[in-house]
Amino acid sequence: MQPKSSPYSLIEGGVCAAAGFLANAVSCGIKDPAKPRLDLALIFSSGPCETAAAFTTNKVKAAPVRLCQAHLRRGDVRAVIVNSGNANACTGPVGMQDAKHMADLTARQLGLRPSQVLVGSTGIIGVPMPMARIAPKIPDLVKGLSRDNPDDASRAIMTSDTRPKSIAIEVPIGNHTIRIGGIAKGAGMISPSMGTMLCYITTDCALSAPLLKSCVSDCVQNSFNRITIDGDTSTNDTVVVMASGCAGNRRITSTGQQYESFRAALEWLMLQLARMIVADGERVTKFVEIQVKGAATHMDARKVAETVANSLLVKCSWNGGDPNWGRVMHAIGYSRARIQEELIEIYFDGHIATRNGIAAGTPIELLRSAVAKPEFCVTIDLNLGEASYTVYTSDLSQEYVDFNRTEYAAPTKAS
Amino acid sequence: MQPKSSPYSLIEGGVCAAAGFLANAVSCGIKDPAKPRLDLALIFSSGPCETAAAFTTNKVKAAPVRLCQAHLRRGDVRAVIVNSGNANACTGPVGMQDAKHMADLTARQLGLRPSQVLVGSTGIIGVPMPMARIAPKIPDLVKGLSRDNPDDASRAIMTSDTRPKSIAIEVPIGNHTIRIGGIAKGAGMISPSMGTMLCYITTDCALSAPLLKSCVSDCVQNSFNRITIDGDTSTNDTVVVMASGCAGNRRITSTGQQYESFRAALEWLMLQLARMIVADGERVTKFVEIQVKGAATHMDARKVAETVANSLLVKCSWNGGDPNWGRVMHAIGYSRARIQEELIEIYFDGHIATRNGIAAGTPIELLRSAVAKPEFCVTIDLNLGEASYTVYTSDLSQEYVDFNRTEYAAPTKAS
Repeated sequence: MQPKSSPYSLIEGGVCAAAGFLANAVSCGIKDPAKPRLDLALIFSSGPCETAAAFTTNKVKAAPVRLCQAHLRRGDVRAVIVNSGNANACTGPVGMQDAKHMADLTARQLGLRPSQVLVGSTGIIGVPMPMARIAPKIPDLVKGLSRDNPDDASRAIMTSDTRPKSIAIEVPIGNHTIRIGGIAKGAGMISPSMGTMLCYITTDCALSAPLLKSCVSDCVQNSFNRITIDGDTSTNDTVVVMASGCAGNRRITSTGQQYESFRAALEWLMLQLARMIVADGERVTKFVEIQVKGAATHMDARKVAETVANSLLVKCSWNGGDPNWGRVMHAIGYSRARIQEELIEIYFDGHIATRNGIAAGTPIELLRSAVAKPEFCVTIDLNLGEASYTVYTSDLSQEYVDFNRTEYAAPTKAS
Repeated sequence: MQPKSSPYSLIEGGVCAAAGFLANAVSCGIKDPAKPRLDLALIFSSGPCETAAAFTTNKVKAAPVRLCQAHLRRGDVRAVIVNSGNANACTGPVGMQDAKHMADLTARQLGLRPSQVLVGSTGIIGVPMPMARIAPKIPDLVKGLSRDNPDDASRAIMTSDTRPKSIAIEVPIGNHTIRIGGIAKGAGMISPSMGTMLCYITTDCALSAPLLKSCVSDCVQNSFNRITIDGDTSTNDTVVVMASGCAGNRRITSTGQQYESFRAALEWLMLQLARMIVADGERVTKFVEIQVKGAATHMDARKVAETVANSLLVKCSWNGGDPNWGRVMHAIGYSRARIQEELIEIYFDGHIATRNGIAAGTPIELLRSAVAKPEFCVTIDLNLGEASYTVYTSDLSQEYVDFNRTEYAAPTKAS
């Protein structure tokens, strides 16, 4: 799902689009040595850079998440190594050793300190990392760093994704042009507060570390924290943004016009990646935008949007192309938001289905044609106040259930 | 699902097992006039009785729920009329008129005031009640009241249930024997704070109105509020308990031994009906008890139990017979309860899968054999404190999704 229209110039290059960044990916056979695929990626800033990140709110945090948080506190991060096929979560002290080992080996090859390397992992939970297969590949991974194959990194971080997710843009900042590029993976366990979602973004914009940090946190709120596929929040979610400062713009050190231009562009880029994640959710057939307006408070609007987005019965009805506004009403009712039933309006792609909390009388064919589309918008007007909130979600398919019925390999066999 | 073992004598008779109650059911063709099935039931106390009830916490409340709440405030309830096939929810002022009309017609035939009649409805949301088909059947419904066909009432309240749910017991209270009998319907939208769940219980125990009220509220907390199928809470949930006082026991007016005997029996009976509802959930193949212990607080234990029970990924794994403790860990992690990852233990039917937050090394075959059973228990020990909580839930099947893909009929066609 590429954006239908873009306020920015789209460019090639993914995480290598911004000046100062190199990347590479190799195959280790992490999931299955017999069927090797790209599963280990490296992103490297050839000079000093600023780095900011956001992580899962799940209290069960994978070892690499905890390691990243520690390394970011020391500052001066220059590289990220990421594997797919194993989440290194619920792996205890051995898991932390393995994550450190990945950072150490990478740092040694790059001539960095271990704390200058971040680690990301995604895949199965509870199975120790196959380090014997990963460690020997790290020298090749580093040797092959270049700007030539930016797509390899986006492929190497995929798990049940069906396609790589990558985007890069040019943004005018004052008299300069800066670049922002990013890759992401999603698929299952996507929920506000992030899903099994990894996202790595690079930019050559020059801006101060504190501004980058608040900017990333702000943009994540309005993009990745607005998507939900199944309400499950993973143990590994990570968004990392690295800024090389190579674009030559005057370093942004305070909020104002230039900061706002950068912030808006970063948020837009994150939102595109977030939308790609939903559209490629596990066995998803519908991309649904849920706009709630007229809420008494921002939190009420958010509760309604997220509750409707996560209602199994609502998601099933979308899968069936059924404009079932009654199920939307019932989800609004248990959202714990302040509502008045008799004021509620519900629209499917602009066609009113519910007025004053009851059927609006719009011909069912019109409503069906809206919900039949692969992408549509559900608007809920609570008519109580001025607050609004939007989330992006999907339907729930039989294939999702089938896909997620079995995954767990015996720990004794898997490593 | 009848109880495997019972601390009470099971008897026949459903809602007519207790002395003083009559019931009947008729067909109105509410869903489809061409395929009539029992869809309108009446339960009647031939003498004065005490009545207490609990209702949905959904803020979108169906008209009959609001009407019941008003009638209960006036006291002196004697009858309940219940239809399936239409929920009379999101039907606006017309819906309230229809609910009142049902109470009025029933009261007239029974020689009662309208406020002495409760109304229950379950079925599709947002479609006006087909009163032209219901009203003419009410005289026959009243005329046929008897103790002879107690199963008819349990059949008439079914929607997507595959079997009627009914149970009755004898309970010694002091030197007397009292009877409690109940019927219920469930199927979809089952969640704590109740689902599309109707339950009607009668007893001939004599006890005071305030005691009955607190007893019902207490027992619902420990039974119907412990079950969840899909996390969706409906607009119509209702539990009504009517006590005729015909058993001849000395009226219970204070807590103590006799009250406790009654309370324990009512709670046990409600729990059996709740378990039947889960076991007959829409396209359910597994009945799963989730016991959380060692929590720091009762609320923490409850959050963990409910979050694990409602996790789509966890439910899918049960459907596949997959002892995926990693998904249980991740759901514990986002439950917002206080936890320490490295203290968590997870058991499948007593076999330890997770110790210190990581794989316990139990052979996968043992864990698989536990989860392969149609009914099993997941125990989660947080090892942080003394609080515990139990919920009853199910897997999620492809058939559930298929079943719920389409339901919504055009309002213009349905009535």
